[in-house]
Amino acid sequence: MTHPANEIDDVVHQRVRLGILTVAHEARRVEFGFLRTTLDLTVGNLSQHLTVLEKAGLIEIEKGYEGRRGRTWIHLTAAGKKALRDEIARLKELIRQVEASQEKDPT
Amino acid sequence: MTHPANEIDDVVHQRVRLGILTVAHEARRVEFGFLRTTLDLTVGNLSQHLTVLEKAGLIEIEKGYEGRRGRTWIHLTAAGKKALRDEIARLKELIRQVEASQEKDPT
Repeated sequence: MTHPANEIDDVVHQRVRLGILTVAHEARRVEFGFLRTTLDLTVGNLSQHLTVLEKAGLIEIEKGYEGRRGRTWIHLTAAGKKALRDEIARLKELIRQVEASQEKDPT
Repeated sequence: MTHPANEIDDVVHQRVRLGILTVAHEARRVEFGFLRTTLDLTVGNLSQHLTVLEKAGLIEIEKGYEGRRGRTWIHLTAAGKKALRDEIARLKELIRQVEASQEKDPT
């Protein structure tokens, strides 16, 4: 049986991208500025990670207006929702293994 | 309140290093070749990640012999055990948030 760490996908697991997917999961769509503030990122850093997620087909990016202001909205695709669910299943398996060995040696 | 992704430490969270810490947590010490096979890594890749973990004070590396064969053993330090516990606490919080929003919109 393979170790759960071997099944983890870096595209989803990377800290900032996991944050983006988690925040985007909480609403139908999420605004760029809100994501940036919530995850404490620079515009450049957030843009870079959004590009990775968009290329992998996990999010879609829409540009539009709110009043006169240009806005960018992000939402998860079906593949993005599935990728996040898969990541969480693997993390839970990994946590289960650590906690099982914690019980044997609770130091 | 800050998002749990902002509290995650990349040194511990990175996929391969999280795998190393998890496997090392399961025994008092773990042998290099066993780690390499379990996590399906090249010698170079495993060495690189071990160096990052050792520099951060999360593991200690001992070199010794088993019969005539040179062996390298890895064990977690107290700081390494704590770092893994902290990572798991943050992952659980993140999973809790995703699952809470899953219930609202189970698509």
